[in-house]
Amino acid sequence: MLVLIFTTIITAFAHAADREKLLTDPGVFATFAAFRLDEDWSKLDKGTRAAAVSAAKEALQRHSADAAIDTVLLRGLSDHADVLLRVHAMELQTNQQIILDLLASPLGRHLTPVYVFNGLTKKANYAPAFPDEIKTALKATPEAGPKRYAIVIPIRKDAAWWLLDKDARTAMMKEHTEASLPYLKTVKRKLYHSTGLDDFDFITYFETSSLADFQSLVLGLQQVKENQHNRRFGSPTLLGTIQSIDETLEALAAGQ
Amino acid sequence: MLVLIFTTIITAFAHAADREKLLTDPGVFATFAAFRLDEDWSKLDKGTRAAAVSAAKEALQRHSADAAIDTVLLRGLSDHADVLLRVHAMELQTNQQIILDLLASPLGRHLTPVYVFNGLTKKANYAPAFPDEIKTALKATPEAGPKRYAIVIPIRKDAAWWLLDKDARTAMMKEHTEASLPYLKTVKRKLYHSTGLDDFDFITYFETSSLADFQSLVLGLQQVKENQHNRRFGSPTLLGTIQSIDETLEALAAGQ
Amino acid sequence: MLVLIFTTIITAFAHAADREKLLTDPGVFATFAAFRLDEDWSKLDKGTRAAAVSAAKEALQRHSADAAIDTVLLRGLSDHADVLLRVHAMELQTNQQIILDLLASPLGRHLTPVYVFNGLTKKANYAPAFPDEIKTALKATPEAGPKRYAIVIPIRKDAAWWLLDKDARTAMMKEHTEASLPYLKTVKRKLYHSTGLDDFDFITYFETSSLADFQSLVLGLQQVKENQHNRRFGSPTLLGTIQSIDETLEALAAGQ
Amino acid sequence: MLVLIFTTIITAFAHAADREKLLTDPGVFATFAAFRLDEDWSKLDKGTRAAAVSAAKEALQRHSADAAIDTVLLRGLSDHADVLLRVHAMELQTNQQIILDLLASPLGRHLTPVYVFNGLTKKANYAPAFPDEIKTALKATPEAGPKRYAIVIPIRKDAAWWLLDKDARTAMMKEHTEASLPYLKTVKRKLYHSTGLDDFDFITYFETSSLADFQSLVLGLQQVKENQHNRRFGSPTLLGTIQSIDETLEALAAGQ
Amino acid sequence: MLVLIFTTIITAFAHAADREKLLTDPGVFATFAAFRLDEDWSKLDKGTRAAAVSAAKEALQRHSADAAIDTVLLRGLSDHADVLLRVHAMELQTNQQIILDLLASPLGRHLTPVYVFNGLTKKANYAPAFPDEIKTALKATPEAGPKRYAIVIPIRKDAAWWLLDKDARTAMMKEHTEASLPYLKTVKRKLYHSTGLDDFDFITYFETSSLADFQSLVLGLQQVKENQHNRRFGSPTLLGTIQSIDETLEALAAGQ
Repeated sequence: MLVLIFTTIITAFAHAADREKLLTDPGVFATFAAFRLDEDWSKLDKGTRAAAVSAAKEALQRHSADAAIDTVLLRGLSDHADVLLRVHAMELQTNQQIILDLLASPLGRHLTPVYVFNGLTKKANYAPAFPDEIKTALKATPEAGPKRYAIVIPIRKDAAWWLLDKDARTAMMKEHTEASLPYLKTVKRKLYHSTGLDDFDFITYFETSSLADFQSLVLGLQQVKENQHNRRFGSPTLLGTIQSIDETLEALAAGQ
Repeated sequence: MLVLIFTTIITAFAHAADREKLLTDPGVFATFAAFRLDEDWSKLDKGTRAAAVSAAKEALQRHSADAAIDTVLLRGLSDHADVLLRVHAMELQTNQQIILDLLASPLGRHLTPVYVFNGLTKKANYAPAFPDEIKTALKATPEAGPKRYAIVIPIRKDAAWWLLDKDARTAMMKEHTEASLPYLKTVKRKLYHSTGLDDFDFITYFETSSLADFQSLVLGLQQVKENQHNRRFGSPTLLGTIQSIDETLEALAAGQ
Repeated sequence: MLVLIFTTIITAFAHAADREKLLTDPGVFATFAAFRLDEDWSKLDKGTRAAAVSAAKEALQRHSADAAIDTVLLRGLSDHADVLLRVHAMELQTNQQIILDLLASPLGRHLTPVYVFNGLTKKANYAPAFPDEIKTALKATPEAGPKRYAIVIPIRKDAAWWLLDKDARTAMMKEHTEASLPYLKTVKRKLYHSTGLDDFDFITYFETSSLADFQSLVLGLQQVKENQHNRRFGSPTLLGTIQSIDETLEALAAGQ
Repeated sequence: MLVLIFTTIITAFAHAADREKLLTDPGVFATFAAFRLDEDWSKLDKGTRAAAVSAAKEALQRHSADAAIDTVLLRGLSDHADVLLRVHAMELQTNQQIILDLLASPLGRHLTPVYVFNGLTKKANYAPAFPDEIKTALKATPEAGPKRYAIVIPIRKDAAWWLLDKDARTAMMKEHTEASLPYLKTVKRKLYHSTGLDDFDFITYFETSSLADFQSLVLGLQQVKENQHNRRFGSPTLLGTIQSIDETLEALAAGQ
Repeated sequence: MLVLIFTTIITAFAHAADREKLLTDPGVFATFAAFRLDEDWSKLDKGTRAAAVSAAKEALQRHSADAAIDTVLLRGLSDHADVLLRVHAMELQTNQQIILDLLASPLGRHLTPVYVFNGLTKKANYAPAFPDEIKTALKATPEAGPKRYAIVIPIRKDAAWWLLDKDARTAMMKEHTEASLPYLKTVKRKLYHSTGLDDFDFITYFETSSLADFQSLVLGLQQVKENQHNRRFGSPTLLGTIQSIDETLEALAAGQ
């Protein structure tokens, strides 16, 4: 089995400005789709595979105007899935169409969806009630430059969480946020609301070049009271590397 | 793998009036069957596939007098299943016969049932005891026009729920219903009783063009006490788009 | 995939009197085996399939003297299994031999066992201590004639149940039984003790032509205290139709 | 799919005296490996299958000096597995080598391991502290002659169990043992300690010709306090018949 | 299905000194990847298999400068996986690249990843606060020489554990450590922190030639209060043998 990844070119699909908006605005729908590549793929000859990769890129490029598409190479670091597609658009049906087009391409016939999570970005829910020092800290500029690793951790809260009044939840989220402050520079975080759109309440997405910092962050988040209300945290945890398509193709070629 | 959907034609199968009755009357049996399309399907040539789709439609049309059949395209937005068939008839064995006929058709050989839920529609259980203002609100006319998305969330209550006396359950359901009032216009809801017919107590079915509103509705329903008695809520949550057969065939053609 | 069912002929296998005894006496072992039919079956030509069905019937007929064999068509109404075989004999190894013979036949090569439950029939455990009015009610003659649907719900009790003294369990079972009285006429029930023979404590088997009545019965059974001690109820719930072999073969022919 | 079983010859592999020691001494490692036989096996011609069975027997015979090997036919009575191999040796790596040799044989290519449990026999843990009457009762000679059925029930205790002091555990195990006394004659029991060697704490193994007695025994064991500390009991419960290779080959021949 | 193992040569890949550092220093990333070997592998002729094994070794050798790679033969002793690869490097992406290279080799096309766990080594967390006698005991020299068995037990703590203050956790870990002291000589232990890197908090790795001692160690660890905070302990427990490639190839040859 081989794995392909097409980050560099794909991340250029959405025009820079639109992409920035899709990745930062509230009201955007994201779909995280993790795929396994079947065993027949590696039995195809090199030319057929190259043509299939080209066609897949074209299929994705058709959506470059209205979606931001990123990929993470899971293979070797996560069970059961080889590659993660992360798609942002203003409507969830755009995300569906992008995945349908990919699956309808010759490459897609070798891809099996393993996990699909959907989420909606929203304005910060609890932060407006936080003290100014936290608000200021949250505005700290993260380290520039690309990150090496991406991690997806879906979360489901328990029923008791949702029955707490908003002040109680805000107090716990304040403590949660304080625990995360030391890692703002080295770990990028993004939150998606998935209640009703799949079997989780939140999809948390992280990018970092320091997995030691990332681990300290998660340990910190486990040491606050809000963590008692996570009925499910991960399962699956999806961890992989953000790589360019060129590096990936080179890796693939090396093995054949 | 390709996906097919045959909403437009199929939804015309039941005569308009009968269909309306099947979709609104109590005492109707519904079966929700989610299928995966196997990998061999996409390897068939176009003519063979077209003939198979025609035969499947004919198989379903034979039941147009006594059943209402709808489809939802899950692929790309849900794990493990590609298409959802929703069938309503006065007897559950009619639903079974429809699915048997579909599976016995050349297309059916490529379909694997992944989930099958059965439910029975009933008169409102708690609403008669609600105050008049809620009763009036519940009669509000929902937005006209077709909805874009359909969502199925099966629910299993805990043992404590069923041991509560009816007044206690009515009080909780009143709170539940109040939480849903703001979304009556943009989110259509339909309830099926499935106790004993599968491993859930209820199948809740939603249609909406605004997933943001739908998410707010589910969040609201999680913030009332009745939610503490949901032993299982979703798992699976099935989310997809309601599309016409023509749009779908076009999408399929594009990929080949 | 096609499904076959051979009720009419099979149910004639055990001589009428023996069959009646096997289905009513205590000390009888029952095996419920649910099978999936594989995809290759439908690719065989009609003659090969007909010969395989004949051979399967012969394999089962060899056991007509010492077993009662029934079938339920699950396909279309239950996930993961297509047909349910229900076998009664005085020794569990007879049931095993019947399934081995079926699986060793040409048809059997296309069957995969999905669920196997084993149970033993016993004299009523709690009823002797019930008041006379319940005893009398339990003797009511059920509606004559064949039923349309069969449902299997396996049950596992919690540890607390087994630690209750017998009087406490009898009191709860009295309440359980009272809840079932209104449905004695339209829903046939049969209880199998499976502790130690599989991962459940009981296999409950129902036949009815009125699924609405059956649902009301299960709802009633969920509203008594004994239900709090059901650690697992269903999962799987197997629901299907009792059909004659002739009707089934006709349905199969129609699709090909 | 066909099933093979090779009890008679295999159980002669270990010299009678050694076999007796391996099956009764403390400090012996047992491996319970349940296999599914794949669908291709039944497509092989008779001669190829016979040669494969011979080679499998030879593979096992090579270990006759240092291991006791038994088989149970699960097929027809248990889900997901067809045959159970029970191997006893002084070192766990001997058990591994036996299974590796079997899997490396032509027959082994058609076997998929479904469950593997490992256990260690030890001197009785709590019995030395039991009153004399129980100790005497435990020495009762069981019924002579071979048993018809074998049952494997793996058990995992909860954390609270291991935190009880030994006296408290001994008192509960005394009650547990008393519940088992009436069945000493008709149900043979053997205990394996598996903590750390797989995901269970104990593998309990039973042989009986009376499944009614066996069921009464398990019901009795569920009615003592110790049962509250069984976090998992079964799941899977493996039930099958102990048959000679000759009977089995005959059964196989009949089906082909 | 055949299994291959290449310990001897592989463990020579990292230069002795580097390997020692990778296996003892804090700040090292380990990946435990368990694979199943598919059924097609055993159908290849001997020459093709030998060439594939050579290519796999070369693929791994390319990383000899910056990684320590070990293997454990799980087959026959664990469900669902045949071989375990344990990789240590300073960056997790090195581990990923090693597994990608292995999977891209001709042998890799027959390997399916079943479990992947990631962990980070750290300085002892609680030991600095332990009394001197425990600190001294922990420095005891373990028995020299290679161990026969390796065991991997992943662990997830509950939310309450992480909310305890550090003194409370240190007290419990002191008790945990005391329970392990009698086994320091015969059971080697190594701890990996996996919070956020997969769905566990710790990966515990053991090597021993005495599984009886290992079992006593785990039983001891289950009898301390800290064990109440293990929400998941094993599931899977991976147990296998550490063997040289030469022994393994011999075993493979014997079966063919």
